[in-house]
Amino acid sequence: MTALDLTIDARRLVTELVTLAMISEPVEPTSDGVAVTRVVFTPTDLKAREFVEQLAEEAGLAIRRDPVGNTFFRWQGSDPTFAPIATGSHIDAIPNAGMYDGTVGVLGAIEAIRALRTTGFQPRRSIDVILFTSEEPTRFGIGCLGSRVLSGTLSAAAARTLRDADSRTLDEVRFAADFAGELDEARLTPGAYASFVELHIEQGPLLEQAGIRIGIVTAIAAPASWRITITGEGGHAGAMLMPVRHDALVAAAEIIQAIEAAALRTNTIDTVATVGMCDVFPGAVNSVPSRVRLSLDVRDTSETRRNTVLDEISSACTEVAKRRGVSITHEVLNADAPATSSPALIHAIEEACTAESIEHRKMVSRAYHDSLFMARIVPMAMIFIPCRNGVSHRPNEYASPEDIARGVAVLARTLASLSLS
Amino acid sequence: MTALDLTIDARRLVTELVTLAMISEPVEPTSDGVAVTRVVFTPTDLKAREFVEQLAEEAGLAIRRDPVGNTFFRWQGSDPTFAPIATGSHIDAIPNAGMYDGTVGVLGAIEAIRALRTTGFQPRRSIDVILFTSEEPTRFGIGCLGSRVLSGTLSAAAARTLRDADSRTLDEVRFAADFAGELDEARLTPGAYASFVELHIEQGPLLEQAGIRIGIVTAIAAPASWRITITGEGGHAGAMLMPVRHDALVAAAEIIQAIEAAALRTNTIDTVATVGMCDVFPGAVNSVPSRVRLSLDVRDTSETRRNTVLDEISSACTEVAKRRGVSITHEVLNADAPATSSPALIHAIEEACTAESIEHRKMVSRAYHDSLFMARIVPMAMIFIPCRNGVSHRPNEYASPEDIARGVAVLARTLASLSLS
Repeated sequence: MTALDLTIDARRLVTELVTLAMISEPVEPTSDGVAVTRVVFTPTDLKAREFVEQLAEEAGLAIRRDPVGNTFFRWQGSDPTFAPIATGSHIDAIPNAGMYDGTVGVLGAIEAIRALRTTGFQPRRSIDVILFTSEEPTRFGIGCLGSRVLSGTLSAAAARTLRDADSRTLDEVRFAADFAGELDEARLTPGAYASFVELHIEQGPLLEQAGIRIGIVTAIAAPASWRITITGEGGHAGAMLMPVRHDALVAAAEIIQAIEAAALRTNTIDTVATVGMCDVFPGAVNSVPSRVRLSLDVRDTSETRRNTVLDEISSACTEVAKRRGVSITHEVLNADAPATSSPALIHAIEEACTAESIEHRKMVSRAYHDSLFMARIVPMAMIFIPCRNGVSHRPNEYASPEDIARGVAVLARTLASLSLS
Repeated sequence: MTALDLTIDARRLVTELVTLAMISEPVEPTSDGVAVTRVVFTPTDLKAREFVEQLAEEAGLAIRRDPVGNTFFRWQGSDPTFAPIATGSHIDAIPNAGMYDGTVGVLGAIEAIRALRTTGFQPRRSIDVILFTSEEPTRFGIGCLGSRVLSGTLSAAAARTLRDADSRTLDEVRFAADFAGELDEARLTPGAYASFVELHIEQGPLLEQAGIRIGIVTAIAAPASWRITITGEGGHAGAMLMPVRHDALVAAAEIIQAIEAAALRTNTIDTVATVGMCDVFPGAVNSVPSRVRLSLDVRDTSETRRNTVLDEISSACTEVAKRRGVSITHEVLNADAPATSSPALIHAIEEACTAESIEHRKMVSRAYHDSLFMARIVPMAMIFIPCRNGVSHRPNEYASPEDIARGVAVLARTLASLSLS
């Protein structure tokens, strides 16, 4: 493959990334980066999808949309008897996020194909660029909605029970957004693709700290998330005496600390646990909180260790509930297994790095991605590029044009090699 | 005064209380009581004020509004050379509150005057029923706005700096609600009234537990409230490793527990401390919290002890900030002195109870009221009636028609006696 004379147009690609970033819901003003909010199936999301489809069309790719909103851009291969290969990522963004998370893996993949086309390369296997629906959990409370449905991890029946904050079902909003058909039809069978490779920013500081430009993901940590509800007894903040209180927020505070302690107790950096949301009811200065709702997000490269942490958190909830006379329940939103990359794909990416003379390192992904779910039906690997200070999900998220171009070049060579194998 | 043959129309009064309760912003559905939300200077508040003004007018009272929205309903006395006396309370309600807090002291006072009128009684001193603006801190973050301005506790200059959540100033919203004039004009001089008596539900369980129908308040606890802001570092919940985190919510959880501990350490039921609000930014499942804002409410019958508790909380903030590498600041919203009731007024209420053959007890008010601030310019006392299970600020807040009628009868006799003295 070293014979390929690739030219990645980083300037054009970054211009397209910025154009996409401008398609955003209103965001908090910031002088430090570009803030983006783009929630699945909103007019903003649909406008952004339209922009990506236009780029794909200009690149000569055939477009197919599935019922859950995953969109496939195909470069037709020369031999239809070979299973196609795929790449891709997402374009949705949590409130006030950055402009590189996901988008680099979608627009970068289109650029990779444009660069390959320019060299006169012709793939044997077809190459699909997949734009996955709702990798972020913002709207329906569950991440990787598109790849979960695609891989059969989330059944159509379970997907139909999802509702957004306005109690609108997935079916309601996807029909309104013109994604017709039955959810069952979105599911792919194992073997539908020969391989899947996702390009993504690291969302952590390790590559930057080591001065290495490409990370090859060998495993994706196992994520789990819960919604924890603490119900105590409300009352007047002046009149309700301390000894008779069953304050839901003080109980929640203990749970929040128990969660941190459980993650730290594993004594490895591979466990992370986060409470990102804390909703207090009734939420008045002079009212004792009667109910608190917490979100819990735990991830680990080891599913066993992650489950031990969850068990410890559950025990802490039971103990706090009993001691404080409150009720604490939790709802499991997801609890997924970790994924391991395909050795053959890792090898293909290593060879691409060598051909481009780029230093690389193998690493674990602690963030999860659509690749986690694609791994269930297709050999998978991921290509990481550095991002400044490891920052992600914030407006000051940043990847340099040079790093993006290197990532795209490695992706292009990997796809070329896989499409011929 | 035993000669007065008083008849309190509890049925009419409760009907009026229910009618007032129906004037509410949308509330959470409940099968347990009547939920009310009524925020100062909203169309709902103005409609409720109109209803009260109509009742006052029907009762033959003269209406005066001051620039901050306090409204005075006057029963003219026979001798204008004597300073008038006053009673009153508030009609605003925090989100999803109950229907008796404050309203009993406004509509009950009008009923007291109707009952006195029916007996043919004629006051020597004029009697004012005052509807105080914004006893609840919901909109401007500060409680007892009306009585603070009236008593000069809050200067007009300081009041002008208040803003609501939409950054609208007090002047903007009061002008829009048709309360014209300069705030300075609302201030009363000491001596403007000869006495002030407020009728209110207890908002605590003591009277009910003791089976006593009337409480006479001898002192009102000293309230203080802060807004605490914890600023840490945000990031991706998967990729940001535990050892490098500066999670604002975990720090907030420690502060919440330190607040409870500081209140419990005083070893008296007279100290209460509450965190009623906890706002998390950015507030996403998969984002490490970068900023948390807490409300703090501390009350004590002893100002010195309360200040010791606040000092301990401040030290805890400093310690947590240092240890966790976050920044913690606080803004003092108010820090008021406690108030002591007038012995002469306590005696007048005791005599009214005796005339009505109602068992009473002296007690401290841990909730604060407009009386706390009226006490700075006029001799003050309060009449408490029991409320079911001590519940307040919730839809299931309840006071029986019989208890309300007893409270109104005691208020009527007290006002009659004070108006002749």
